[in-house]
Amino acid sequence: MNALSAPDNLTAATPARSRERRQSVQAADTVVAVLKGLAGLGGGASLTTLAAHLDENPAKVHRYLVSLIDGGLVTQNANTQQYTLGLESMLIGLAAMRQADPIRIAEPALIHLREHLGITSFIAVMGNKGPTIVRMEEPSLPVTVNVRVGSVLSFLWSATGRVFLGLHDEPAVRALARQEFDTLGETQDPPAPFDTLVTQLQDEISRFECVCVRDTNLKGISAVAAPVFNYAGQLTAVLTALGASGGFDTSLNGPIAVCVRQQAQLISQQLGYNIA
Amino acid sequence: MNALSAPDNLTAATPARSRERRQSVQAADTVVAVLKGLAGLGGGASLTTLAAHLDENPAKVHRYLVSLIDGGLVTQNANTQQYTLGLESMLIGLAAMRQADPIRIAEPALIHLREHLGITSFIAVMGNKGPTIVRMEEPSLPVTVNVRVGSVLSFLWSATGRVFLGLHDEPAVRALARQEFDTLGETQDPPAPFDTLVTQLQDEISRFECVCVRDTNLKGISAVAAPVFNYAGQLTAVLTALGASGGFDTSLNGPIAVCVRQQAQLISQQLGYNIA
Repeated sequence: MNALSAPDNLTAATPARSRERRQSVQAADTVVAVLKGLAGLGGGASLTTLAAHLDENPAKVHRYLVSLIDGGLVTQNANTQQYTLGLESMLIGLAAMRQADPIRIAEPALIHLREHLGITSFIAVMGNKGPTIVRMEEPSLPVTVNVRVGSVLSFLWSATGRVFLGLHDEPAVRALARQEFDTLGETQDPPAPFDTLVTQLQDEISRFECVCVRDTNLKGISAVAAPVFNYAGQLTAVLTALGASGGFDTSLNGPIAVCVRQQAQLISQQLGYNIA
Repeated sequence: MNALSAPDNLTAATPARSRERRQSVQAADTVVAVLKGLAGLGGGASLTTLAAHLDENPAKVHRYLVSLIDGGLVTQNANTQQYTLGLESMLIGLAAMRQADPIRIAEPALIHLREHLGITSFIAVMGNKGPTIVRMEEPSLPVTVNVRVGSVLSFLWSATGRVFLGLHDEPAVRALARQEFDTLGETQDPPAPFDTLVTQLQDEISRFECVCVRDTNLKGISAVAAPVFNYAGQLTAVLTALGASGGFDTSLNGPIAVCVRQQAQLISQQLGYNIA
């Protein structure tokens, strides 16, 4: 190792040295382009196709492919001569997925909702007791509707919970929701039979990409919730905006629903959903 | 192709040019090392930690990180200053996963079994009718036990099918197996009640990492089958060796079972299983 290192600190940057640096940056950019090029071509391509895609000299592309093969990021198929992304690329991707934290990635969306619409919003994930608020932003207004981080929300009555009820099909999660349903008791009528409710919600979310409620969870409070998906297409979080029903537009094409949907889609994209 | 070909075709390779080439190869190697280093550190690290891990000068590592950030492969967290693998790394990994074809990757294992043990082996995946043979290798002996690519195997009586029955828990697959079970009719007794059978197989596979059968599927034929898992830990294929019961050792510590298990694990590793 140490191709260009220690001298960097010891000697002043001569023109020759700064040319070397420029070259190493160009080389790094080319490696990035080759990897992204292979990914863009579905993970594998011939040298000719890849070089044409990158608008680069095949000999130059080949030189970089050799380094990538040495490093295990690319393999060459002995039969087809195609270059394909290899095991190390997969492991790098898996490490990137572990880093792709929906809570951290959702932060700009919460701030966007606060700054552009002046509303309270939060991100919820599935905890072991149900849909759980993990991050919240509220506008700095004299009176705001507020939620508490750590709160577990109803599957049946909250917009957030309804998204989880419709789309989170793990048996353990369904069992939690069913438990809430079965203990409704005499005080409250269920919105529909359990399985009907799930089907209705699935239909609603696939058509409108969000769930809106008015006064169902708390009297006087309305909310719009939209699903956040990960690279595998699994529901990984729910983004929700809420406010006092009087001044809160829950119509499907109103500014709040449009913005919540857009921001949820942006988070999903950042988590690798549906782009590739 | 040749590392020293094109732009390069036009000018004679001067010492300066060949030094440039060496530098670009070194730069490519460093980019690969930085990406693998970040993955090895769980997907994110501070500059100091990463440079120490790579045994490189931090200033040099930083220069490469800048290229990777420009390309979207790495992001820097504004709060913690940590460098983490980003969205483009995830997309490269997803493309690598799509390329990670268990059938292609299993080919050397089938050849290994043929060459080292002189036995017939095949790889099966879950088709829409059940466990289906998709690739086969047989030794060039005068008499061999043979299988046909495209054949669908029994969930209940074949070693291959039993691995799928134990580990493939998709409802559609279980339904196919149940259908076979329910139509056994009066001619054959089931090996056990359905749910007991599934539990027994799960237990057997988790303890021995393979399933051995003698004469259950076809009189006079024995087989050893081992599961192949993908990066997500899902059963993605089954590797099976088979032969005439007379000369085929199905003992759990015999050379065939040991070799089939080892080869199945090698394929799984190549598919990104359990390494990261």
